[in-house]
Amino acid sequence: MIQMKVQGLTLDASTNSPIVILSEQEGSRSVPIWIGLLEATAIASELENISFSRPMTHDLFINTLRAAGWSIMRVEIVDIRDNTFFAYLHLHSQERSLIKIDARPSDAIALSLRAGVPIFMARHILEAKLIPSQPEPDSQEKWREILESMAPEDFGKYKM
Amino acid sequence: MIQMKVQGLTLDASTNSPIVILSEQEGSRSVPIWIGLLEATAIASELENISFSRPMTHDLFINTLRAAGWSIMRVEIVDIRDNTFFAYLHLHSQERSLIKIDARPSDAIALSLRAGVPIFMARHILEAKLIPSQPEPDSQEKWREILESMAPEDFGKYKM
Repeated sequence: MIQMKVQGLTLDASTNSPIVILSEQEGSRSVPIWIGLLEATAIASELENISFSRPMTHDLFINTLRAAGWSIMRVEIVDIRDNTFFAYLHLHSQERSLIKIDARPSDAIALSLRAGVPIFMARHILEAKLIPSQPEPDSQEKWREILESMAPEDFGKYKM
Repeated sequence: MIQMKVQGLTLDASTNSPIVILSEQEGSRSVPIWIGLLEATAIASELENISFSRPMTHDLFINTLRAAGWSIMRVEIVDIRDNTFFAYLHLHSQERSLIKIDARPSDAIALSLRAGVPIFMARHILEAKLIPSQPEPDSQEKWREILESMAPEDFGKYKM
């Protein structure tokens, strides 16, 4: 397993599908993962430190785990089959031992950023899927547009 | 508290923003709640019984709670302030007592449908926000389009 970091988000030029770029924490190799728009906004809002007045879905997820006495320890991207990546959330609690949950990498990454826990990737994926020259992540401008198009309920209408 | 059911989804004609319509389980009053597109797709896919090969975010949420020994018992929409609705998830586990978590109603509804648990609404909201004639929920056509525009990774590319 190799520790990875989120290098940025970009868009597939031909399909306009969001791509999250993971790079080695110590090294120069990167892996692009095509993800859904829904999860891309959850990653983008965290990367841009945008705070909402109400909990977004992944915030609610983290808040619920915390209240229930569970913590995410790490997330792992463990395999790729038929161009689909497979990931695990690793959780633990004081009462019970470690559990791991099958997840899409997009959710795993969105949760790892909020929980401040590391992202690991199986070495064989990195070796199979690395991209030699890293695409320049967008100037965040498109993500800003997407975030701006979100529902009014999501934004800071309500003053605490 | 009055028990509600999801009557359907529609779109705000002027803003194209999704609206979920909740109706009384026993009665004829309805309340429209403006929600985000992200959460609307999570509700629509469950209403339409669309199954994905990989866990969507709210599926992952439910799977994680289950593995951690927690269940959602009910969700409650408890207040509206400045046109923002406030909800709670009520969870319990064998080891610990009931907890409640602050949530947006859209997430609460998406989770309640997956967990098969009831939705309740505070009586004062129903009395303040009821709509006399119920808008006809869309013919699901628009939701189908939205679901079809989701990322390829979300769909059944991977055969089990």
